[in-house]
Amino acid sequence: MKRYLAVPDSFKGTLTSGQICDILADCVRRCDPSARLRAIPVADGGEGTVDAFLAALGGEKITLPVAGPYFEERTAFYGILEGSPRTAVIEMAACAGLPLVEGREDPLRTTTYGVGQLIADALARGCEKILLGLGGSCTNDGGAGAAAALGVRFLDDKGVPFIPVGGTLGRIAVVDCSGLDPRLAAAEKVAICDIDNPFYGPSGAAAVFAPQKGATPEQVMQLDGGLRRLAEVVLAETGRDLQLLPGAGAAGGMGGGVCALLGFRLQMGIDALLDAVHFDDLLRETDLVFTGEGRIDSQSLRGKVVVGVARRARAQGVPVIALVGEIGEGAEAAYAEGVSGIFSINPRAEAFATARHRSADNLRQTADNLLHFCQSMGWQ
Amino acid sequence: MKRYLAVPDSFKGTLTSGQICDILADCVRRCDPSARLRAIPVADGGEGTVDAFLAALGGEKITLPVAGPYFEERTAFYGILEGSPRTAVIEMAACAGLPLVEGREDPLRTTTYGVGQLIADALARGCEKILLGLGGSCTNDGGAGAAAALGVRFLDDKGVPFIPVGGTLGRIAVVDCSGLDPRLAAAEKVAICDIDNPFYGPSGAAAVFAPQKGATPEQVMQLDGGLRRLAEVVLAETGRDLQLLPGAGAAGGMGGGVCALLGFRLQMGIDALLDAVHFDDLLRETDLVFTGEGRIDSQSLRGKVVVGVARRARAQGVPVIALVGEIGEGAEAAYAEGVSGIFSINPRAEAFATARHRSADNLRQTADNLLHFCQSMGWQ
Repeated sequence: MKRYLAVPDSFKGTLTSGQICDILADCVRRCDPSARLRAIPVADGGEGTVDAFLAALGGEKITLPVAGPYFEERTAFYGILEGSPRTAVIEMAACAGLPLVEGREDPLRTTTYGVGQLIADALARGCEKILLGLGGSCTNDGGAGAAAALGVRFLDDKGVPFIPVGGTLGRIAVVDCSGLDPRLAAAEKVAICDIDNPFYGPSGAAAVFAPQKGATPEQVMQLDGGLRRLAEVVLAETGRDLQLLPGAGAAGGMGGGVCALLGFRLQMGIDALLDAVHFDDLLRETDLVFTGEGRIDSQSLRGKVVVGVARRARAQGVPVIALVGEIGEGAEAAYAEGVSGIFSINPRAEAFATARHRSADNLRQTADNLLHFCQSMGWQ
Repeated sequence: MKRYLAVPDSFKGTLTSGQICDILADCVRRCDPSARLRAIPVADGGEGTVDAFLAALGGEKITLPVAGPYFEERTAFYGILEGSPRTAVIEMAACAGLPLVEGREDPLRTTTYGVGQLIADALARGCEKILLGLGGSCTNDGGAGAAAALGVRFLDDKGVPFIPVGGTLGRIAVVDCSGLDPRLAAAEKVAICDIDNPFYGPSGAAAVFAPQKGATPEQVMQLDGGLRRLAEVVLAETGRDLQLLPGAGAAGGMGGGVCALLGFRLQMGIDALLDAVHFDDLLRETDLVFTGEGRIDSQSLRGKVVVGVARRARAQGVPVIALVGEIGEGAEAAYAEGVSGIFSINPRAEAFATARHRSADNLRQTADNLLHFCQSMGWQ
């Protein structure tokens, strides 16, 4: 009996990771009925992260009212995964996501306060590990709102406490973490992101991401200044320089904020997922791994899904097939990372505008062919 | 040491079979330097057939003056292959091909007389086997011209001998084969074609192919009537019904004519080639076969290159990889014929107008990937 493992990234704009998993499961059922496929949908920390982890590991979806982007009450959700340690998986987009403020974007006024409430609820339910997905945010508050919801106090230069938002980060004079929820300190805390931007500056959270959240160039300057101010205060009080942390700029600076103020560590999304599903253990019971992404090229190989999966599989000598929408320049570098073969799903020369509607069929055909090929070659 | 065998059809309009062979040889040299690749360029009986056989088997190219399409003197060529029996390979397009009459096409007046002269020359040089490629013709004379050049006499209803062309086939009253070159009877004679059209009628040589040789609808009727007349005379004199022979309509009816008048048998091009190169013997020293074609679909699987190759390989349990420009409907039927895997060379969704210029690179990348994949899977 062959044992397959599928860990595909989404094909952006055409197929979600979950759809790809379903198609591969169907192909294996038809082409190799005696085989087993275990599928792990992949999320990058943004929208869909909770569902991906729940699909991979099982668990319970919790819904509760928390503060939305404008402090309005809003029903949000997170997941508590099966298994030990008791682990919550939270996506910040659930109550601070960009789609929630469509048409009224304003990164100077939006907050991550609700995210802190989701974390607090998970702690109240006895979670010992928090996986926090960063991505798809409408905020630029450096995670200050979430920190406030968990007991961190921010004071202005007159000693007046306030809950900073993007536009008021510059008023922070003192950060006081002494009131932080003690259960949080005891928990393992991982924030998931898939970018490595710094906290502030030309490549920072405000400059790179605030415009797509509705900020004007002047507002970008103000937001960037606010993040600098927060970093200065953190540096003065903790000796820790947020600007040295790659990924601190994720989710409007929440990457840096949750690390400095709440004790999270940052991890690339794929590694967090692979750790959570005990991927290395799964590999020991796997004959072949399917992974893939919309486009593979020298850029995409910098620590994203395909390479994250392939490196671990290589360490155990498990072959990896990458199914992709497009093979770009430099893709062959994936071989050295442990990818056995890269197969595009395009059956013919056809423009993307047409081909995108056939992605599911094309993927199915490509997977069928590979399953037949491997059988026919007498592999295993 | 792995032993590869490449027998690819051309990708019509983008890559010749010879170019594909060269690319595959290059990929094997780079990716698997210890391996050996034997490449056999494929031709379908039309232009390039002589070169393909000479490339596969070695031999000598003979040039000589013969009659062109309008009985004008023209230098043509054929090949004498190395090995035994002494074999001539002739393509009728060398002196009766459509490109030779560009701008002055007239299937009522053109002749295959020169083809007969090429055959006669081969017999004079001691050839014991004649491979005659049918395809790419400008003629519709039912092979009567070629037969005349080899001693067959055609008489009208007044007993006057003449050399029929397409427009005068209807005047044939008697065919007299008693004067046929006796060396021809002793030789093995194979005519290569890759169509199965009948001699006359709605699917016959005139109706289907004469329009692209310049015939008007009225002329098509006249040509079709001429072929019917030739078939009637042959039936009366030999008892053989040309209309029952699939492929008799090849090359303006030359398929039927050379069978009935000169004793040839028809063979699909790929089978003639595979026989000539002793493909079954080569398979015994082969670990993997590469084949392919521009587009694979349920239609292309009717006896063409990929299936011709795969069936023989299947009989010996040798896996076959098909590299194709396009995977069409029903291609999966190739698996049952012995194809292990079908791989399109398209790395991305891109219109053919653009993709066609990258065919060589795309093929190279696809073959590199497959060679890497097979090695990585620990195959063999």
